Amino acid sequence: MHRTLGICYYPEHWPETQWPQDAARMVEAGLSWVRIGEFAWARMEAVPGTLTWDWLDRAIDVLGAAGLKVVLGTPTATPPRWMLDTYPDMLAVDAQGRARKFGSRRHYDFSHLGYRDECRRIARLMGERYGTHPHVAAWQIDNEYDCHDTTLSYSDAARRGFQDWLAQRYQSTDALNRAWGNVFWSMDYDSFDQIDLPNLTVTEPNPAHVLAFRRYSSDQVAAFNKVQADELRRHTAAPLIHNYMGRITTFDHWKVGADLDIASWDSYPIGFLSDRLEGTAKEKAAFLRQGHPDMQAFHHDLYRAVGKGRLWVMEQQPGPVNWAPYNPAPLPGMARLWAWEAFAHGAETVCYFRWRQAPFAQEQNHAGLLRPDSAPAPALAECRQVADEIADLPDVGTATAQAALVFDYDSAWAWDTQPQGADFEGFRLAFAAYRALRRAGLNIDILPPDCADLAGYKLVLAPGLMKISAPLRHALARFDGIALIGPRSDTKTDELSIPTPLGPDLPDTDISVVLTESLPPDAKIKLQGGGRFRHWFEHLDGTAPVHLSTKSGQPAIMGGDHLRYLAGWPDDATFDAIIGGLCDALDLPSYALADGLRIRDTATHRFVFNYAPKAQAWGDVIVPAAGVHWETL
Amino acid sequence: MHRTLGICYYPEHWPETQWPQDAARMVEAGLSWVRIGEFAWARMEAVPGTLTWDWLDRAIDVLGAAGLKVVLGTPTATPPRWMLDTYPDMLAVDAQGRARKFGSRRHYDFSHLGYRDECRRIARLMGERYGTHPHVAAWQIDNEYDCHDTTLSYSDAARRGFQDWLAQRYQSTDALNRAWGNVFWSMDYDSFDQIDLPNLTVTEPNPAHVLAFRRYSSDQVAAFNKVQADELRRHTAAPLIHNYMGRITTFDHWKVGADLDIASWDSYPIGFLSDRLEGTAKEKAAFLRQGHPDMQAFHHDLYRAVGKGRLWVMEQQPGPVNWAPYNPAPLPGMARLWAWEAFAHGAETVCYFRWRQAPFAQEQNHAGLLRPDSAPAPALAECRQVADEIADLPDVGTATAQAALVFDYDSAWAWDTQPQGADFEGFRLAFAAYRALRRAGLNIDILPPDCADLAGYKLVLAPGLMKISAPLRHALARFDGIALIGPRSDTKTDELSIPTPLGPDLPDTDISVVLTESLPPDAKIKLQGGGRFRHWFEHLDGTAPVHLSTKSGQPAIMGGDHLRYLAGWPDDATFDAIIGGLCDALDLPSYALADGLRIRDTATHRFVFNYAPKAQAWGDVIVPAAGVHWETL
Amino acid sequence: MHRTLGICYYPEHWPETQWPQDAARMVEAGLSWVRIGEFAWARMEAVPGTLTWDWLDRAIDVLGAAGLKVVLGTPTATPPRWMLDTYPDMLAVDAQGRARKFGSRRHYDFSHLGYRDECRRIARLMGERYGTHPHVAAWQIDNEYDCHDTTLSYSDAARRGFQDWLAQRYQSTDALNRAWGNVFWSMDYDSFDQIDLPNLTVTEPNPAHVLAFRRYSSDQVAAFNKVQADELRRHTAAPLIHNYMGRITTFDHWKVGADLDIASWDSYPIGFLSDRLEGTAKEKAAFLRQGHPDMQAFHHDLYRAVGKGRLWVMEQQPGPVNWAPYNPAPLPGMARLWAWEAFAHGAETVCYFRWRQAPFAQEQNHAGLLRPDSAPAPALAECRQVADEIADLPDVGTATAQAALVFDYDSAWAWDTQPQGADFEGFRLAFAAYRALRRAGLNIDILPPDCADLAGYKLVLAPGLMKISAPLRHALARFDGIALIGPRSDTKTDELSIPTPLGPDLPDTDISVVLTESLPPDAKIKLQGGGRFRHWFEHLDGTAPVHLSTKSGQPAIMGGDHLRYLAGWPDDATFDAIIGGLCDALDLPSYALADGLRIRDTATHRFVFNYAPKAQAWGDVIVPAAGVHWETL
Ligand SMILES: [Zn+2]
Ligand SMILES: [Zn+2]
Ligand SMILES: [Zn+2]
Repeated sequence: MHRTLGICYYPEHWPETQWPQDAARMVEAGLSWVRIGEFAWARMEAVPGTLTWDWLDRAIDVLGAAGLKVVLGTPTATPPRWMLDTYPDMLAVDAQGRARKFGSRRHYDFSHLGYRDECRRIARLMGERYGTHPHVAAWQIDNEYDCHDTTLSYSDAARRGFQDWLAQRYQSTDALNRAWGNVFWSMDYDSFDQIDLPNLTVTEPNPAHVLAFRRYSSDQVAAFNKVQADELRRHTAAPLIHNYMGRITTFDHWKVGADLDIASWDSYPIGFLSDRLEGTAKEKAAFLRQGHPDMQAFHHDLYRAVGKGRLWVMEQQPGPVNWAPYNPAPLPGMARLWAWEAFAHGAETVCYFRWRQAPFAQEQNHAGLLRPDSAPAPALAECRQVADEIADLPDVGTATAQAALVFDYDSAWAWDTQPQGADFEGFRLAFAAYRALRRAGLNIDILPPDCADLAGYKLVLAPGLMKISAPLRHALARFDGIALIGPRSDTKTDELSIPTPLGPDLPDTDISVVLTESLPPDAKIKLQGGGRFRHWFEHLDGTAPVHLSTKSGQPAIMGGDHLRYLAGWPDDATFDAIIGGLCDALDLPSYALADGLRIRDTATHRFVFNYAPKAQAWGDVIVPAAGVHWETL
Repeated sequence: MHRTLGICYYPEHWPETQWPQDAARMVEAGLSWVRIGEFAWARMEAVPGTLTWDWLDRAIDVLGAAGLKVVLGTPTATPPRWMLDTYPDMLAVDAQGRARKFGSRRHYDFSHLGYRDECRRIARLMGERYGTHPHVAAWQIDNEYDCHDTTLSYSDAARRGFQDWLAQRYQSTDALNRAWGNVFWSMDYDSFDQIDLPNLTVTEPNPAHVLAFRRYSSDQVAAFNKVQADELRRHTAAPLIHNYMGRITTFDHWKVGADLDIASWDSYPIGFLSDRLEGTAKEKAAFLRQGHPDMQAFHHDLYRAVGKGRLWVMEQQPGPVNWAPYNPAPLPGMARLWAWEAFAHGAETVCYFRWRQAPFAQEQNHAGLLRPDSAPAPALAECRQVADEIADLPDVGTATAQAALVFDYDSAWAWDTQPQGADFEGFRLAFAAYRALRRAGLNIDILPPDCADLAGYKLVLAPGLMKISAPLRHALARFDGIALIGPRSDTKTDELSIPTPLGPDLPDTDISVVLTESLPPDAKIKLQGGGRFRHWFEHLDGTAPVHLSTKSGQPAIMGGDHLRYLAGWPDDATFDAIIGGLCDALDLPSYALADGLRIRDTATHRFVFNYAPKAQAWGDVIVPAAGVHWETL
Repeated sequence: MHRTLGICYYPEHWPETQWPQDAARMVEAGLSWVRIGEFAWARMEAVPGTLTWDWLDRAIDVLGAAGLKVVLGTPTATPPRWMLDTYPDMLAVDAQGRARKFGSRRHYDFSHLGYRDECRRIARLMGERYGTHPHVAAWQIDNEYDCHDTTLSYSDAARRGFQDWLAQRYQSTDALNRAWGNVFWSMDYDSFDQIDLPNLTVTEPNPAHVLAFRRYSSDQVAAFNKVQADELRRHTAAPLIHNYMGRITTFDHWKVGADLDIASWDSYPIGFLSDRLEGTAKEKAAFLRQGHPDMQAFHHDLYRAVGKGRLWVMEQQPGPVNWAPYNPAPLPGMARLWAWEAFAHGAETVCYFRWRQAPFAQEQNHAGLLRPDSAPAPALAECRQVADEIADLPDVGTATAQAALVFDYDSAWAWDTQPQGADFEGFRLAFAAYRALRRAGLNIDILPPDCADLAGYKLVLAPGLMKISAPLRHALARFDGIALIGPRSDTKTDELSIPTPLGPDLPDTDISVVLTESLPPDAKIKLQGGGRFRHWFEHLDGTAPVHLSTKSGQPAIMGGDHLRYLAGWPDDATFDAIIGGLCDALDLPSYALADGLRIRDTATHRFVFNYAPKAQAWGDVIVPAAGVHWETL
């Protein structure tokens, strides 16, 4: 399968007379795919029950006739205004108890079963009409689950659903009371009806209560998605896709992905650097117009796994966006670089968002490949360049990874619930570990927490994994590379309690975490031979050998030849030294990439990306700012 | 007309026996005017329908007999507690959906028609009783519209009013859907009843929706004011005044001002520096006891225009106030300096707030001309000094301005709605431009956006003007000075969409803004020959000549001999260089004033103000800290 | 009476089979007391009206049989879930109008009379069963009043209670209107039913209104406590105790303490440093693992006075806690040091919190003397060491203090209500003064505002005391040491108005505060001879001698030989110089302790504490980090 490019397009935004010319120019730009429909419910069904497909038929025909393949979206992220007349209580309620209002998008509650039925209905109607349409070659369900914080709702619908979910999980309130430790502050319940959602309590609610609600809420996203996936599968053989976002951990992507064929995501490198990544002002300034050099790679690796090997970028930033705190333009070349980074990580298709900048409504300041006046925007030429380059390179694919990182949503909820240190967050720790692997120039796979096979990997990291699953423990017992577990790993029960005996429970490795400390941002624990832990430190006990100690003599890394536990959160330089040392021990070639230079291999090529705002040398090659270089392996 | 001084006084706060002595001391202090009544509704009408005028009659008599002219205030900013029994829903609702409560002031909703009727009634009753009273020489309507964020209310009354307003403006929901681009996210409406207020949406609402609500809300302020103005005009020939505040942009002062005779404002230089001006801690420290050297001038110029040439300061800070985050005392001399700054800008009257510091209730830590124990506070002597100085100088008046700045409330709402960069704000940009003009020593007029005549001006600035009005475009076409338009000017339609062809639409000048960028606080775009843009940068295209470029070769200023477009937000030094260059090109004498030294001319005199905490030289004259110097022209 | 140690224990959290072993190990650790029961209502009364005492009987028996004395807690801080079925409106409502929910603790409204009856009932039932039990040697009522901001509630119950309280206090709305100055903004009331709680007003409510609500709310805490105290006294002769918290000023501890026998508090030095003390990151870093060297001392001195001489620490931090923003481990030795600091200040008993770290629910990351797996945690050995050391030292007691500080809750409410400077807070000022006294090495008593006798003290400080009470004024008139009053003292009436003549009203001392200024954090007023005021400065007038002036010649300290007024808030170095100078004048030996070295005397010994992270010299003795040294006097 050849790599392909695509585009997001909204025929309903433009006069029908403009569609043919748009389609022709898309083809001319080297695009193969066009995604449409995902916000058009009000055009499909302006009056409840009266479906209007003719315009959509014609749009698909025009696009298909030009040679484009259509990704058709179900429009369930934007129910029309009349839906609220049927279901006035379908709106989510925020943690402050305020019902959200109509007037933007994603105005629905994942727990609302009436709205879920409406989504099943529109998915069925679209499947019936377009499921075997020759130009409809893929489907997108809904749009960006959780965007705008929409997973968690504190509505009546959510409360009732949560109570049912609890009843099914625990069977009796006695069992629930015991599992949660409700004896602690006389929090016992006599019936499931008494259990409220865990917001607005006087002080923090029971963490087990919160974690249960987080799991319930994630399950609703999966159920909402599955209803549409099941319905569409009855009518189409085309692959089903959802477009995930960046740094969203409120629902279990592994579970949602299990019901779909391809995982895609919406990659906005500059927006994400601005609105959702840690970093000093200086660090952010260095990548102001490029985005963080590891943010895209992390999500490519994550979603490639969520997609069981099949990865798309459904929306690729082409210029300034409208929604981040500040919205600078990308360096010339970045729209090309980002696409190649995706391809190097195994993406099949990269779709730019969007064709023409909309002159109206919420995203009118979001650039497209065309300006609002239809003149070419800067990214159009870069898109054409990528299309040309694709032709000269092999098919879709990526290299076998030497390193793996276990990433678990349950753990993210656990640490959200019980951070213990104000700045402790699951993604942040996992991303710190991932960045160290990537600065070492390794190809990385991201693995689910129930991963049962580690064969082929040399180095496995499992930071912040609240509980090691049975399959993973089994795989670790047989692992012959080095697995670095921790910090904060396997030290909790499934109910977010502390196990006794104390964790971690590593095969044939006697280590216990006997005390945990969180540290304010400026504090550090110095290590022997240099380096330091920040944020988090665990006091380890046990008979396993000590590989590294703190300056004051406490264990920093303990374990055997294959399984080791990391007692703290290393800063970047320390993480580099640790990973470098492990690579040396494993005879695994590694680098000390810096200044935004990054590499990624496919089976045949090594790609070199320069995220820095200045040219940099890669061996004999000078890679310009925002440049991509590739060489055969 | 001679310049005059006045005072704010609350006879209802003091024993009647004290009134004659207070009045005598006011006259002795050099005061001519006394403003009373604006918070006294509960004393005028303690029981609904039973009016008690006798105490007010006597107060006016005592004051008038002493030789003072009375400004009588309608008390509509403080409805009595019984009003809530009649109209329980008259309270505004904040954006979080919480109804405000009784217990302070401004506890009413501008959209509430029942309360508006009550205000008409009390205005009528006061007009009937005092409209031709010989001592009542002016009227104030209400007090400080929008103070405490009171323009915007998300109440049921506001929602119903907004729906009516929309129906009148758009006539059909089809027209509204098209105008707003509601197709974007299936946001179309079928009836005006469906349209809610734009708060609490899941993500940002349609900017056209928000802008419409901002316009509606502003219109309610104007309508509220007009009801009282119309009623009073039936009974009095005395001038009608409202006292505006500083840096309030939530309603269109031009529209409210159109129904009144004089514009006044409440000038609290030290409080405003502390609570509503940008600036580093260091910059603020330099003017801690003086206030910002341009804040007062800007508002004098603005409100002189709003008042169609007639300007008062209704409340002048005399010492520490109570309401800013920190409340230091002014430097000795500032109470005099501030008055003279107002007079130099054309003020007819400056009233100090207040006569005697109230020992009770909310403002008990707000200084007056007298201490709570009736001893003189520091400002009393400065007030007397100003009164003496007035006598030696010509009548009210100010100089013809060489420079003008267009200031538009609609644009302020547009950028609030769609800032694109988190720190972009209409006032902030306009004030940055104004400050550069003032540091250059120019006399400045502020112009409304529908200004039709620029004759007499050499230099016109129009920063952040979302859309150039037809009259202004006409005036610009004939303008023979230099008009510097932009940044972010004439690039939006009236519905806050992007026009095609792209703006700006400048007469005979081919320039288009093809891409916009917002920048985080530390980022900058360097310019050829030094200087830099911050916050905002627009990519310009077109055939007009380039006057200034960025270091990377993009246009920074483009245009012809008379009309030019500024592509970014210059920092202060760069703005100074740009204005200096334009003055040179225009043969307009300019200065590079610094360190808080500022000048302002009247027809006959040049006034020099030293806002710095140390003495500074003006030619041969040493102006002491907080000093005022004047010389004949 | 010998000093003793104790422990907090939750038999309901552990299998009954484990109790005997726990009890034996407690005794072995040197513990004498065990506090139980305070969160166990759901175990005592799982079904309304059906009391289950058998498990508690057995727990007390097991503990008592091992030789431990029991402190039995009333469980009213954690009503069971069924209580909400009876009283759905018993939950407090926050200032935003949101009812709090069940699911944590302290979920009750102090104003709810129905719940208050339930608390009387459970106290009676417990008193009846255990009032004369031989092993129950003390009682704790409720737990940590106000923890999690629970004093103030904006519920209907609070509103009705407040209206009644106002009616009793003012008798007529006329009197209330006059007392509050409601004429100011037409805020007059015609009936008490009209008076709402002072939240959600448009701008700040009348400060007299707020202060009245603060007083009412404090009175409800006292009333809530008294109901239980009265009930228990009918059944027991054992001492009644409440465990106060640190830096809680929302209720009048003097009033609550008047109804109890012993004052205890919960001392979490590291948590409090992190979550409730001012300080730069650098200052906090220096004491990261030790806590602030004066925080514990202040509260020991305060609560010793609240307890009329009888002081306990009911909960002593033993290791990392779970609830502060960051939770590092204490330096080795701190669990011992903190206990000795308490004993040196006169504590009878120090109880560590808690015996075994709970592996479940909210506080599972809170260390205990045992780890969750029952192995010893680091503090266990320190506890045993203290127990041994106690045996070698004299009985409970502390030294006569040379210095005293007046501390008033009413004033704290006044300054919360009307800070005038954004960072002005009563505790902060009082603690600044206290710290200066303690750095000078003085033994300090804290006095209530109605203190009538100052005999024995050399130096008395009264900073931020809104109004000097009649008894204190009387005592000051007779005082022959030096009393330093101010800043911001005796300048308000009891209704938070400004008195005329202006305050302070010091016996035979002519001083008036004629103007007040608040200053932003970086501003300062320089003093003659060095030093500076920050935050606050008062302009003084009067005929009293000036002892110290500002650089610009304004009085900084004025007064006679015995009574002086301090016009501003000195920074730490300036406070040290002022206190040092007064000690010299009084021939009172003082020190300039620094770097965390602190001293405290008992009648027989001087204790030296080293809070610094490095060893320090005390004369010839080297006190190690976290070390305690004592020597006989
Ligand atoms: Zn998107
Ligand atoms: Zn005012
Ligand atoms: Zn506690």
